[in-house]
Formats: sequence, C-alpha cells, structure tokens
Amino acid sequence: MSDVARLAGVSIKTVSRVVNDEPAVHPDTAERVMAAIEQLGFRRNLGARNLRRGSTTGTIGLIVEDVGNPFYSELNRAVERIAGAHERQVLTGSSEENRERERELALEFCSRRVDGLLIVPAGMQHGYLVPEMRAGTPVVFIDRPAGDIVADTVLVDNIGGTVEAVTHLAAHGHRRIAFLADSAGIYTASERLRGFREGCARAGIRYDERLVIMRKPTEESVGEAIRTLLAGPEPATAVVAGNNRVTVHLLRALAHSPNRPALVGFDDFELADLLDPPVSVIAHDVSALGEAAANLLFARVQGEQSTPRKVVLPVRLVARGSGEVAPR
Amino acid sequence: MSDVARLAGVSIKTVSRVVNDEPAVHPDTAERVMAAIEQLGFRRNLGARNLRRGSTTGTIGLIVEDVGNPFYSELNRAVERIAGAHERQVLTGSSEENRERERELALEFCSRRVDGLLIVPAGMQHGYLVPEMRAGTPVVFIDRPAGDIVADTVLVDNIGGTVEAVTHLAAHGHRRIAFLADSAGIYTASERLRGFREGCARAGIRYDERLVIMRKPTEESVGEAIRTLLAGPEPATAVVAGNNRVTVHLLRALAHSPNRPALVGFDDFELADLLDPPVSVIAHDVSALGEAAANLLFARVQGEQSTPRKVVLPVRLVARGSGEVAPR
Repeated sequence: MSDVARLAGVSIKTVSRVVNDEPAVHPDTAERVMAAIEQLGFRRNLGARNLRRGSTTGTIGLIVEDVGNPFYSELNRAVERIAGAHERQVLTGSSEENRERERELALEFCSRRVDGLLIVPAGMQHGYLVPEMRAGTPVVFIDRPAGDIVADTVLVDNIGGTVEAVTHLAAHGHRRIAFLADSAGIYTASERLRGFREGCARAGIRYDERLVIMRKPTEESVGEAIRTLLAGPEPATAVVAGNNRVTVHLLRALAHSPNRPALVGFDDFELADLLDPPVSVIAHDVSALGEAAANLLFARVQGEQSTPRKVVLPVRLVARGSGEVAPR
Repeated sequence: MSDVARLAGVSIKTVSRVVNDEPAVHPDTAERVMAAIEQLGFRRNLGARNLRRGSTTGTIGLIVEDVGNPFYSELNRAVERIAGAHERQVLTGSSEENRERERELALEFCSRRVDGLLIVPAGMQHGYLVPEMRAGTPVVFIDRPAGDIVADTVLVDNIGGTVEAVTHLAAHGHRRIAFLADSAGIYTASERLRGFREGCARAGIRYDERLVIMRKPTEESVGEAIRTLLAGPEPATAVVAGNNRVTVHLLRALAHSPNRPALVGFDDFELADLLDPPVSVIAHDVSALGEAAANLLFARVQGEQSTPRKVVLPVRLVARGSGEVAPR
C-alpha cells in the first residue's frame, strides 16, 4: 500500500479511502490512486477491498461428508466457535463421500480465496491441493488423513477404541462378535477393522471374516446385514457397529426383535442413554476434534511454519448396558 | 460491460479477459479497459473478478440459531442442495438466539457480498437489513417472520400443529395438559402457545396458566419445570413440548420416573420411534422448509420482483404411543 501511496503521491490513508470506496476523496485523486494500483499490479488485493480485513477474505472452508449428519453438525459448531474467535466465517459443503465432489468443493472454496480449508476427506488423492497449499492456503484434515500428501491431521484413536469395544464384549462372554461398518474404502472403517482384528486376537477369539460386513450404511443394507449375521447355525451374539449411522440403522432393524445381540457402537449419539437397553458406545469428543483442527488451521493462517502435525484424540468406552447383554 | 467495451474501444470479450485476469491481452489494452471501468464506476464488480461468475460472489448466507442442532443441520443440508443446483456455496453462522449476533452475522455476510441471505431470525427488528435489501441482496426468513420489515417468509403451521397436539391428548382423556416451551419472546414458541390455548378452548378445557412454563430449554430448566408441573394436588397428566430441544430434555428428566405424563412434542427427531414409549410428535418436513426458502431466495436472485410471499408449510401429528397414555 505504501508503494501505491508513493507512486500516486498521496498519503496511505488516502489510498485506504479509495480502496474502501469511502467518500471524501477527490475523483482525480481516486483516479491517480487506481492508476498506481494498476501499475504496481496491486490488483489481487482489490478483491478484498470491500471486506474488513486487508488481504484476507475472512472465510475458511469446511468440507464434511454430510452437514445434515449430527456428528458433522457438532463438528461444524465447534469449528464455527474457533473461527468466530478469529473473526472468520465458515463456508460449508457436503462431499457426500464422493471424492470428485470433495475436489470440486475444495477448489471452489480456494477460488473464493478462503484463508484455510478443513477437510474430512472422501478420497485418498489430494495432490490437487498442492498448488493451493504452496500458494499459501493451509489445509487441515479431520477424522481421516490425506491420501498422498503430507498435511496437518486430527484423528481419533480408531484402533484403540475398537479394541476396547471387542474387549468389553469378550469380557461379557461373547465369542461370536460381528463387525458391521461402512465401506472398507473409508479410512475410519478400515482402521476400526484393524482394531477389531486386534481386539479379537487379544481376547483369543479366532477372526472370522463371515462376521464382518462393510458397506455404505443405509436402513436397508444394515437391516439385511444384521439378518445375515443372526441367521445360520453359528449366529453372532454381539455386534460392534462401526459408526453412528450404522448404530442407528441397526437399532431400528433390531427394534421389536426378540433376539437382540449385545452391541457397542463407535461414536456417541443423542438419546443413546434413553433407549432400552441403553446403548454402549465408544465415545469421543467431536467438539474437541473440530476445535483441535480449527486451532491447528489458524496457527498456520497466522504463519506457523513447523512440519505438519498429526494429532490423535483419545476415545473412551461408555458402558450403558447394551454391551453387557450375555450371549444366548 | 458493454459500456466499458464501447468506451475503451474494444470487444466485450476483451473486457471480460481483463476483468478475469486472463493472459493474451496487450498491456496497453488492459490499461485502457481498466481506465474505462474506472470512469464508469464499474468498480463494484471488481471484487468478484477472481471468482468464476461475473457479478456474483457465488455464495449465499444461512443464519440459524445453532448449526449443531440436528433440526438446523437438516435445514442446512436442504439449503445446500438447492444452492448447489444454482452453483452457490453456503456460508453458515449460529446466532445463538442473540439478536445482536444475528445482526453482526447478517451484515458480515452482506459485506462479503453474498448473493442472498436466509435467516432464522433471533430478533424482531430487521430494519438494519433494509439498505442491503435495497442494494439488491434478497433476504428470506425461515421458521419465524421478520420483525418490522416486509420480506419473503417460510413458516410451518405452528398454531394448527399445537391445536392438533392438544386435541389428541384431550381425546385420550386428559384435562390437565401442560405446555412446556422455549421463551415466549421466540415467535414459534408464542405461536404454539396460541395454538395451545386454542386447542384447550376447542376441547372445552379451561386454560390454566399454572400449567404453562416458557423459558430457554436446558437440561436443568426443563427438569425443574416438569417437577413443578407434576407436583401439587392437581398435577399435569399430559405435556405438549414446544420443540425438539424441550422434548429431548424432558425425556431425559422423565427417564426412570414411575410417573410419566402423556407427551406430544413439536418437531420430529431421530430415534423418537425407538424410545419406550415411542414419542408422538407434530412432525414437519424440515428439508421442505429449507428447500422452499432457498427456492424463494434464488427466484429473487434471478430477478423475480413480485411482492414478498409468506409460505406456510403443513404439519402432521405422528401418533406413536406417548400421547395415548391415559391420565392416572
């Protein structure tokens, strides 16, 4: 700005007035300032001149799978809180678990010059972000890591949590424990499968892949899966549900069923404690996840240059009853 | 743009190239175009030149009470869907039921030149939006009307729904029906109170203000309220809960209580059908609310000039059992 002022032969204050469309600047002066801006290639910042801050657009982008899922809305709220403290607004978008849509949204947000991006990634290929990151847009990955680039990431302890779920069920006598989760292509689902296998090994249970069903959870797919798991000569007597969507669909499929397996679900959810039996879960603090990621992002926005960090937040078993049902 | 082209003596395509920072324009020509833009006061649109579209910023703003509340996240998702069809991204913000915060967010979004605003208003004074609306930013109010301006509004049938709730409870023999809702200063709460009174009148029940408690719903305030309502010589035997937050807090307060009143809640919520007893609700289609409002907004963005509309969406009683509990 001082270069512009010097070239136009006016004060910095005058340049600022022109850039902010304030009145009380003589048209000739304004024209001289605009010409100086032009000449110095100061154009880039013009996009921001109607905004309060200098070279920032005052927004960050948040891309999740589905803003309508209560898990992500809680995350969104936490991100908004931190963003607010930094005087930023939040642009949100749902990738719908589609890597192309994630890419489109991310590049769209970058083209709107967000100050930073928070992404719950749908895909595993993030090379497309490298030019944006090089150009100075920090990116933090939430809940799942970036596929093929090094970036700040905040995760929860997926493996430890699932081990704990299996251990809990085994302690109540279960040997036929099923794992019902989202598609294996999704990072959290595949990590939780690793935890499930490790939990089985630790409990001395032979891992039986017939008890593992992983696919996009819908009311139908989960209903069909649980009917399969509970049929046959050696039915499952307990289920580890891979996330809150699986758990909710499972509860609906099992309602009024006389033959309910024991259950531990990954992710806590509203009203879990009021169901009959109350649902035991591997809980983690979704707000803490959003806050940690947003704090990391704003540290980068403010110039922090350290190597990318990976933060893993702890989880805990909340035993409410559904995991303590004995095998029949 | 054609004025600029004429003044600079170049084609519209060349103006477009300069505005979009595309290469292949001779520096002298670019300077001439910039000078013409200057002269014609075309500056306003410069802010958008780094964006894909011409004179739009490609965003709309959505202000709700709390993006973390599942009711609003469902609304958000519906708005996002319609916005996506119009190639717009959504800036979201939580007013926290605070009119000052609503105002700040709305003006902040306007200063970022959103193409339109969707507001679930916290306050009843919206004169602050008049300059923005005059300057061409359409505003649609959702779920609650604007306070003191005329604007497009999409509501649900609050009165009709609450009348239906009372009628349902009265049909199952209740005469001591309580109304437990958010603060009377909130439009939906006060409209539902009107519906409650009308429902009592239609059922031939004397309206008893001792059975009406309206305040911001927290776990504590709702717990205290229901204890009061169920105490004394003439306790309530049934409750109409004014929104999904009241219902959820009420369910938690009543868990394990031997003395559960009949219940109908305004707003449906996830797992209501799996509770014991399943919770009867006045349901409305939150997605339809978001879609209707977003469609109205984009009609305005595209130039629709008709007088502001008020759309009232229907509600329906979903009787699941909790409203059919007989008075004790």
